[in-house]
Amino acid sequence: MVSASLWIGEIFMAFGVIAFVLMSFKARPEDKHHFLISILVVLIATSSYFAMAIGQTHLTLSDGHSIFIARYIDWAFTTPLLLLGTATIGMRALSTNKTLVYAAIGADVLMIVTGLAGGLSVDHSRWVWYAYSCIAFVAVLALLWGPIRAESRAQGREREYVRLIGVLTVLWVQYPIVWLLGSEGIRTLSPGPETLWYSTLDVIAKVAFGFLSLATVAKLPSAVEEGGTIVESITERRIRTAAG
Amino acid sequence: MVSASLWIGEIFMAFGVIAFVLMSFKARPEDKHHFLISILVVLIATSSYFAMAIGQTHLTLSDGHSIFIARYIDWAFTTPLLLLGTATIGMRALSTNKTLVYAAIGADVLMIVTGLAGGLSVDHSRWVWYAYSCIAFVAVLALLWGPIRAESRAQGREREYVRLIGVLTVLWVQYPIVWLLGSEGIRTLSPGPETLWYSTLDVIAKVAFGFLSLATVAKLPSAVEEGGTIVESITERRIRTAAG
Amino acid sequence: MVSASLWIGEIFMAFGVIAFVLMSFKARPEDKHHFLISILVVLIATSSYFAMAIGQTHLTLSDGHSIFIARYIDWAFTTPLLLLGTATIGMRALSTNKTLVYAAIGADVLMIVTGLAGGLSVDHSRWVWYAYSCIAFVAVLALLWGPIRAESRAQGREREYVRLIGVLTVLWVQYPIVWLLGSEGIRTLSPGPETLWYSTLDVIAKVAFGFLSLATVAKLPSAVEEGGTIVESITERRIRTAAG
Repeated sequence: MVSASLWIGEIFMAFGVIAFVLMSFKARPEDKHHFLISILVVLIATSSYFAMAIGQTHLTLSDGHSIFIARYIDWAFTTPLLLLGTATIGMRALSTNKTLVYAAIGADVLMIVTGLAGGLSVDHSRWVWYAYSCIAFVAVLALLWGPIRAESRAQGREREYVRLIGVLTVLWVQYPIVWLLGSEGIRTLSPGPETLWYSTLDVIAKVAFGFLSLATVAKLPSAVEEGGTIVESITERRIRTAAG
Repeated sequence: MVSASLWIGEIFMAFGVIAFVLMSFKARPEDKHHFLISILVVLIATSSYFAMAIGQTHLTLSDGHSIFIARYIDWAFTTPLLLLGTATIGMRALSTNKTLVYAAIGADVLMIVTGLAGGLSVDHSRWVWYAYSCIAFVAVLALLWGPIRAESRAQGREREYVRLIGVLTVLWVQYPIVWLLGSEGIRTLSPGPETLWYSTLDVIAKVAFGFLSLATVAKLPSAVEEGGTIVESITERRIRTAAG
Repeated sequence: MVSASLWIGEIFMAFGVIAFVLMSFKARPEDKHHFLISILVVLIATSSYFAMAIGQTHLTLSDGHSIFIARYIDWAFTTPLLLLGTATIGMRALSTNKTLVYAAIGADVLMIVTGLAGGLSVDHSRWVWYAYSCIAFVAVLALLWGPIRAESRAQGREREYVRLIGVLTVLWVQYPIVWLLGSEGIRTLSPGPETLWYSTLDVIAKVAFGFLSLATVAKLPSAVEEGGTIVESITERRIRTAAG
């Protein structure tokens, strides 16, 4: 079941690559970066799923538990890309709000690295790492649902943005649950169901979420319809108003 | 003493996280990225200090000397962040001067990576790596005290900037000294005092320096007081003057 | 022959560092980043050639083949820098075309990482990784010769740009050939000629190509001659025209 789940995941990721590349040819110029993000995410996943499917990067540690390092390398690059894509759907005006995106990505990378540290730990310290990683995850969610959502409201994109982060949240909260129950946690879940669950989540969070993101992007008013102007961000308005 | 120094370091870093997060709520919008940098620096340090305190990433090499890999992973991310924060206090107008920041960060990363190569070497090549790392450090200092200082003068921020890089220089020059005397160098210093010295430096260079940076930022004229305009950089003025 | 090739490579790289640093002092302000890129490329190469020359990062795997990890660490940073430098000679107006540069760099990093995965594989999976890496390389070339070339034409820089990517292509296509014939591939080539070939390629692709790039940059009309204006990119024009 482990191997089958990984190969089926690989097939879906490869399908995502082909679909997103074909779709990118018809993309509006100003939307190209969203297609690039979706393509890179599934390209990275095809690499990591192939590596895992043939057993590469699989370590068995001194206490008997095992870990796929490829998962964490994948996540370390794909989750920041997914956050970048989602945040730039919520906020068009990036000027001073880049800080919010960098903050979310910083917390996200800490979440993945401490999750890996937990996965590599063979004593009770794994639970400290797990707690650290979960707190970083809460910080990511707080940024997505707090200040970035406020920006999306100010820029008239809240409805589209909230649907995306709603889906993202429902998917991403399952990862720490699988981790907790699986081979790196309390081992209630055997490797078969654990891998199946991870593969299902990954396919939905990378391929299906990619389709949803790109469909959302395509329905947003184009730069042309808005006269090519850049919508002002909350921070910019606050500075201008105070100055004026 | 090794363990105590690391746990005390951990406590100070955690204190820094709480303090900087609380302070960030009252930050002016245009200063937010400085708070993010300070927060990320101490967040990374809480991870690396916890890892070291419980003995993780501690390697003993074939010649008997030992090394904490976590230190170098920490430095590879925190030192570029500290340079970025300090340089953007000296130079508001980032346009063409991004090259200076990237140059400092490039030299800095080479400094850390070659320092790690020296720490992992078990023969005399370590001294070549050490020399390489020190030369990269001199390049970092030359950029901070030369062209970036000139920019800070042109932008009316020299006094604040020079105080910061003065403190930074006094702290950072001690790292190659501890390295030289400690377990990766000539081993005059035993692990206890070496760890105590590193911890003291790290707490001052990350937590105390963070307070100093953020206090400096808060006293700079706000974007509002300057009418929301971006101060022109030396390079920009040179291009405009030649063109006009 | 392995050691001699590496030490001679090291000497050329060190020469490149000195030459490019000296040349950078006379660079026009707006060209500084091209000098920084060339300097960083040869600085990274001096580190990796020194490491390889003294035998560091050399692994012999369970099937008897060997690999220098330092090569891949070098390439993971130098090839994106070289692409960035070349693309920004072709396209001055980076605004919305950053996506093209990021796409080339994303494909490039996947090419290096999957090449490393192939080099570390001890079974037939290496050929899948090799094929993956070659496809990523084709994507890099397609971006350089397709949309980025079209941008360079629109910005009146096609002749200079095409000469650069012509040289780059002739050099870079030899790397997968050496890999295929060498110790990580079918082992037709013994380590001596393999290392000599790699060193020759690296010196030309990093030092000689650096001279060519910087000479090209120096001959481009300066920002001053063009009145300090930024040439509009194809994407920008398309958006403006549709909006106007």
